[in-house]
Amino acid sequence: MNRPDAQPMLEPGERLDHLLTQDLKIIQSPEVFSFSLDAVLLARYAGVPARGRVLDLCTGNGVVPLLLTTRTAASVDGVEIQPKLADMARRSVALNGLEDRITIIEADLREWSKRADVRGAYDAVTINPPYLPRGSGEYKENIHKAMARHEIGCTLDDAAAACAAAVRSGGRVTMVHRPSRLADIIETLRRHRLEPKRMRLVHPKREAEANIVLIESLKDGRPELRLEPPLIVYEPDGRYTDELLHIFYGRKTELAGVPAAAEEERT
Amino acid sequence: MNRPDAQPMLEPGERLDHLLTQDLKIIQSPEVFSFSLDAVLLARYAGVPARGRVLDLCTGNGVVPLLLTTRTAASVDGVEIQPKLADMARRSVALNGLEDRITIIEADLREWSKRADVRGAYDAVTINPPYLPRGSGEYKENIHKAMARHEIGCTLDDAAAACAAAVRSGGRVTMVHRPSRLADIIETLRRHRLEPKRMRLVHPKREAEANIVLIESLKDGRPELRLEPPLIVYEPDGRYTDELLHIFYGRKTELAGVPAAAEEERT
Repeated sequence: MNRPDAQPMLEPGERLDHLLTQDLKIIQSPEVFSFSLDAVLLARYAGVPARGRVLDLCTGNGVVPLLLTTRTAASVDGVEIQPKLADMARRSVALNGLEDRITIIEADLREWSKRADVRGAYDAVTINPPYLPRGSGEYKENIHKAMARHEIGCTLDDAAAACAAAVRSGGRVTMVHRPSRLADIIETLRRHRLEPKRMRLVHPKREAEANIVLIESLKDGRPELRLEPPLIVYEPDGRYTDELLHIFYGRKTELAGVPAAAEEERT
Repeated sequence: MNRPDAQPMLEPGERLDHLLTQDLKIIQSPEVFSFSLDAVLLARYAGVPARGRVLDLCTGNGVVPLLLTTRTAASVDGVEIQPKLADMARRSVALNGLEDRITIIEADLREWSKRADVRGAYDAVTINPPYLPRGSGEYKENIHKAMARHEIGCTLDDAAAACAAAVRSGGRVTMVHRPSRLADIIETLRRHRLEPKRMRLVHPKREAEANIVLIESLKDGRPELRLEPPLIVYEPDGRYTDELLHIFYGRKTELAGVPAAAEEERT
């Protein structure tokens, strides 16, 4: 499916990475946006229907939609507010010949989710929103990275509201976020009729505090939360755990193709 | 400190157990109430000041106050609504010669926490409330066990309200509960100005879902939650993990004195 003329699709500063072992390629840009461990975990964890319509909000360079196509035959829409990233995502979709499966939409989710043709139109939604409250820390990075990290264009409440608007009643919304915000996350999801049903904590090491939380909600669901086994990223000796390699690569365990600092992104 | 005449303090159906390795004894009654793993974990996990005033609500047979005396020089009050359990708790306190450290109060926490001399009077509060919503399942057990398990005399909101009333601003409230209720727990705590600050999930085995959650809140605290490393109860071969033995016994590892089915209680 990959086009032989892939390289000319790259803009200055971009590079082409293999996306794990899925025979997918993705356009990355260290200066602008590279996908993170969070995105990979989200794409693997999210409850998605076998077919239907799936939405990925804050899609960045499109990593989540690309990975989701290996798990579902659903059509996947990705929404990204930044034109440069939406363009990268579109070119990655074309590069993989997935234009019939994935549609990248350049839009502000706050406005876009209010459209009549969007409301309740999706069977499942995934989102990897900005983690850091607006104004926290300094915006040392460029505006592209700052917007992906800080709640500049999208607060947690904006994110939950957009997910809740786009998903149908009984549909699933899966979010990856930082554990330090968990109380806000749960309260905000519930305020938008998204009932947390399944949650998994990701710990860098067995004895470390969690630094990633995966949480799946059901629109209009009944309150009852399952807290799944912890996911540990590294063995004590610094190797990835078998479970993480499995998540990255399916059954294969070779390491080629993982961005070396993937898990450092957006932290 | 133990009285040689301990046995005569027992009522029919009661038995005297060693409370772990703390040189403490406790009166148990398999038909009425026996302490659980939850209570032991709560007593070890709770943030308590070196001195001052600590309160344990839903104290049952007084296991949490008894264990807390090994961790703090604070005075500890235990509140229990059931006369039979409050009486057992008082006799266990006397049996250990701890009448000057622990006071057992027979009261309904809903009314008691509204008293002027209670409001804001405590530096820290612990609570192991009933887990099951009123009317859920059947009350197969007798009324004593049913009241300890079901929200008959005390809903989650009652529990949080009483904790919030009794603790001073800046004081800590630590709760043990079931993970399935986590969304309710967090929302309810926050509604009463108790900000979750520290949480630990307890998994029976490494690959199992959590079945106990420990959560510590700060009255009027700033939102930021730490999700601590998972606590695993059993090794794959069925032995207790070293960490659990350490929690049970401090540095010693002999098993004598643990109620065999402790972790089955109230589940």
